[in-house]
Amino acid sequence: MRYELYYWSDLQGRGEFIRLALEEAGAPYVDVARKGKRGMAAMMKILQDRRGKRPPFAPPFLKAGNVVVAQTANILHYLGARTGLCPRDEASRLWAHQLQLTITDLVVEIHDTHHPVGSGLYYEDQKPEAKRFTGNFLSERTPKYLSYFETVLKKSGGPYVLGRKFSYVDLSLFQLVAGLRYAFPNAMKPIEKKVQRVVKVHDLVIARPRIEAYLNSDRRLAFNEMGIFRHYPELDE
Amino acid sequence: MRYELYYWSDLQGRGEFIRLALEEAGAPYVDVARKGKRGMAAMMKILQDRRGKRPPFAPPFLKAGNVVVAQTANILHYLGARTGLCPRDEASRLWAHQLQLTITDLVVEIHDTHHPVGSGLYYEDQKPEAKRFTGNFLSERTPKYLSYFETVLKKSGGPYVLGRKFSYVDLSLFQLVAGLRYAFPNAMKPIEKKVQRVVKVHDLVIARPRIEAYLNSDRRLAFNEMGIFRHYPELDE
Repeated sequence: MRYELYYWSDLQGRGEFIRLALEEAGAPYVDVARKGKRGMAAMMKILQDRRGKRPPFAPPFLKAGNVVVAQTANILHYLGARTGLCPRDEASRLWAHQLQLTITDLVVEIHDTHHPVGSGLYYEDQKPEAKRFTGNFLSERTPKYLSYFETVLKKSGGPYVLGRKFSYVDLSLFQLVAGLRYAFPNAMKPIEKKVQRVVKVHDLVIARPRIEAYLNSDRRLAFNEMGIFRHYPELDE
Repeated sequence: MRYELYYWSDLQGRGEFIRLALEEAGAPYVDVARKGKRGMAAMMKILQDRRGKRPPFAPPFLKAGNVVVAQTANILHYLGARTGLCPRDEASRLWAHQLQLTITDLVVEIHDTHHPVGSGLYYEDQKPEAKRFTGNFLSERTPKYLSYFETVLKKSGGPYVLGRKFSYVDLSLFQLVAGLRYAFPNAMKPIEKKVQRVVKVHDLVIARPRIEAYLNSDRRLAFNEMGIFRHYPELDE
């Protein structure tokens, strides 16, 4: 199966969670919108024309033959069963998906650190609100979420969230740690000390051959201030 | 199977999407935290002690025998297959779940109309920001989401989001319309005119015998200013 991933061409964003899974699985895929202007046009056509019978609301979405799957966690749920990135029994699939949806919730809050008042406005038009939101986010929310995953890792017996079995959730945890470090290098230092199992997942992921090759390739976009994880020094104090 | 639903006792919130599904399915369930102080204590114990091997991050969560499932959309995904509230084939399950996750995204934004700066703060401490957020939410976001579901209903052939087959997604659409009407009665009037298929789903749901009985029972909590849908007149202008 040759997959087609549709996501914005210039940022990691939510699409990165899918890219990491496709790369780790060694699955053949095309990152459609990054294939020049025609790629972006193809994505916008699917979004705007809504010609398909089951149109996605927003990127990322994945085409697999005639199937179009949208919503990041749903795509991973779908891919997990097909690529070995999740055990096939229902209880494991539900649990992995539940964890991924908790990551989704955290990703929304990360986005809101720079856009608390509205996605349609510039960061520059909501800086005081962003500062207020981020203060609470770094002191309360990030520690709460990451310590939850620390507990999950403790209970699983480690080193992965499902125990000895590696899954797409570990890839997403890696991305969370990498992104939070990029956005909030100062604030993350004391937080990381309390979630060493989570940090260990990050380290195990970057040592995986396919991920290492991916991270060193030009397929991996750099973090930037168009994505979810943005480094605005004034927010990281 | 006798289900145990765990959710805050005094509000509809995210738990209401689960209650509606259990009621429509005629599934035997206990709304644990509403069974007095011991119920709330039982819920908090599961959340805080995290004794289970796979602890939930937050309510709502559902116990079904030994299985504990969390995350609203994941619970509905689980229940859908067991209660006839979703077709059993994989493509339909993925599609229904994708739609439910889009509803989840909208629910986050609805929550943020009164809490844009942080869940830990009172509404009174973020009123100017709430007003700014809600302006954009009502002029751009609500029409965008609801017109998306209008398109889905048009493409399905109606009257339900999956066509002639009723599903838990229809129950959630009902709850969205009812909640948005409660929170923003003025702003919703012109919006509804453009999404008549969505409004029709609402009307079909309240006419279903089990839902009608539920809505008239004391099991249905009233909307209030502790839930997701809050009526603050100053935001509805």
